[in-house]
Amino acid sequence: MKKALGIDIGGTKILYGVVNDAGEIVSDVKKTSTPKKADEIFSTLKNIIAEHYNEIDVVGLSSAGAVNLENTRVLSSTPNLPDGYNQIDFSTLCDKKVYVENDANCACAAEYKNGAGKGFNTVLMITIGTGIGGGVISNGVLFRGSRGNALEVGSMKIFADKRQKCTCGRYDCWESYASGTGLKNCAITGAREYLEFKASIYKDKSPEEITTYDITDGIQKEDAYSIKVFNQWMEYMFVGLVSLTDIFNPDCIVISGGMCSFVDVEGLEQRINAESVVTDVKVRRATTGNNAGMIGAGVLALG
Amino acid sequence: MKKALGIDIGGTKILYGVVNDAGEIVSDVKKTSTPKKADEIFSTLKNIIAEHYNEIDVVGLSSAGAVNLENTRVLSSTPNLPDGYNQIDFSTLCDKKVYVENDANCACAAEYKNGAGKGFNTVLMITIGTGIGGGVISNGVLFRGSRGNALEVGSMKIFADKRQKCTCGRYDCWESYASGTGLKNCAITGAREYLEFKASIYKDKSPEEITTYDITDGIQKEDAYSIKVFNQWMEYMFVGLVSLTDIFNPDCIVISGGMCSFVDVEGLEQRINAESVVTDVKVRRATTGNNAGMIGAGVLALG
Repeated sequence: MKKALGIDIGGTKILYGVVNDAGEIVSDVKKTSTPKKADEIFSTLKNIIAEHYNEIDVVGLSSAGAVNLENTRVLSSTPNLPDGYNQIDFSTLCDKKVYVENDANCACAAEYKNGAGKGFNTVLMITIGTGIGGGVISNGVLFRGSRGNALEVGSMKIFADKRQKCTCGRYDCWESYASGTGLKNCAITGAREYLEFKASIYKDKSPEEITTYDITDGIQKEDAYSIKVFNQWMEYMFVGLVSLTDIFNPDCIVISGGMCSFVDVEGLEQRINAESVVTDVKVRRATTGNNAGMIGAGVLALG
Repeated sequence: MKKALGIDIGGTKILYGVVNDAGEIVSDVKKTSTPKKADEIFSTLKNIIAEHYNEIDVVGLSSAGAVNLENTRVLSSTPNLPDGYNQIDFSTLCDKKVYVENDANCACAAEYKNGAGKGFNTVLMITIGTGIGGGVISNGVLFRGSRGNALEVGSMKIFADKRQKCTCGRYDCWESYASGTGLKNCAITGAREYLEFKASIYKDKSPEEITTYDITDGIQKEDAYSIKVFNQWMEYMFVGLVSLTDIFNPDCIVISGGMCSFVDVEGLEQRINAESVVTDVKVRRATTGNNAGMIGAGVLALG
């Protein structure tokens, strides 16, 4: 059985471990801080690879940003990584095959191989954090598009009349309604529009001060405003997911990311199957957690 | 060079011809009426195959409806084809390989192989008629989803607040805004909402009477209402296409279908590239015309 060194390059830490082609981690998982300079990242990666060189066949890297079609470089700018990072040719790290892929695609591969999407034909992975990212694997093939930038699902528009400006400067991106930022936007709009706000436990806050935590906490306290805000957020989530179901015909949608635990996956599954023209689909929470990037990078590198 | 018999099964006629693996038609194209009963369709197909049996390696069929993952049957109901059609196992037509695929996917394959999408990595095909259909081929692979039903792009929602009911009974499907039916809906809404209607050449018509032809004709006559309706329709087209560009990262979008000639492809290409997060993409009109189904079925059957 072939083995990969899976390395997840994050903005603050680098996680790594040995992964087999079933997507299982077969070594200790180690962690180191992400250096502040691009050349230091390169040498840190070289050291990590040297440490495991004799046990592995290939190296897989998970990174933020858009990756080129040859899977050797990160092309786009990456706000949490240093200048010069997108100049690195990762294939020169060692004489074994080095394969770099976008973190959302790696997470999708991890869930498909050995997570919530295991055993399904077409897994659509949706990562809900500050923004929304995605990946899709069908029949074992990751969909990458012409330049490796596919599945920018957060930019899908869910209104066609320029209703709400997104942080990206464009209008009505799904992620401005259904991400963590989206929940905050729903709270602000709701504070201005819902009569329930006047009787809410948050009535003395200015709308911009209300946090996503306030809303999830408010639901526990049966605050009518918080419940209405949350339901609107879930409606936006639903609208995007049912469109993506019709577009990709997945048999499993895996939800991950920082906001994942707040999502009503059972309710979404029921509504999507009632509404979509391409039934049926399971909606599940991701299970590979912090190891997703490492596992997915390893699995993809092993091909 | 291998050859396929490409057969396009339409609601009124069956078109067929021999196709090589470059997507070229290498025989006369013939035509026969579509029989009114499923068993007659089956025997007609048998006769067509017998006619070309000695010159071909495989048979490709293009059909309306959702096709199973084995490419042997049409699973969904097909309003323009007789009862029992979805009981046919096309693989029993002859002892050579018989491959059936959805007509939108066949059209995509035809354009990718030997049409407007030739030479591109990722071709997104959008068919704009009464509704909107789609197909995508990336790296030579047709994206089919878990049950062969992917690319139901007409069902993508472009509003999230239940604004307009679609003929399918759901709300805010892209095709209820940006198809031929969508242009008619834009004309109706415009007649009610635009001040320009009162001075329009169509001011004496009831909104429901205005046809898509009236609008395209009105543009020639510089009728301000018709121009405004058309621009709104193009805006809806744009919103859907920019979302699909971000989702699939195509390097070429091919537009086909009955409404294709009305679409401002140059304007769309410019706007999509200015707005999408995944540049750049060409937008082109389909070139394989009525032969698309036949060519695509042949090419896909040859694999």
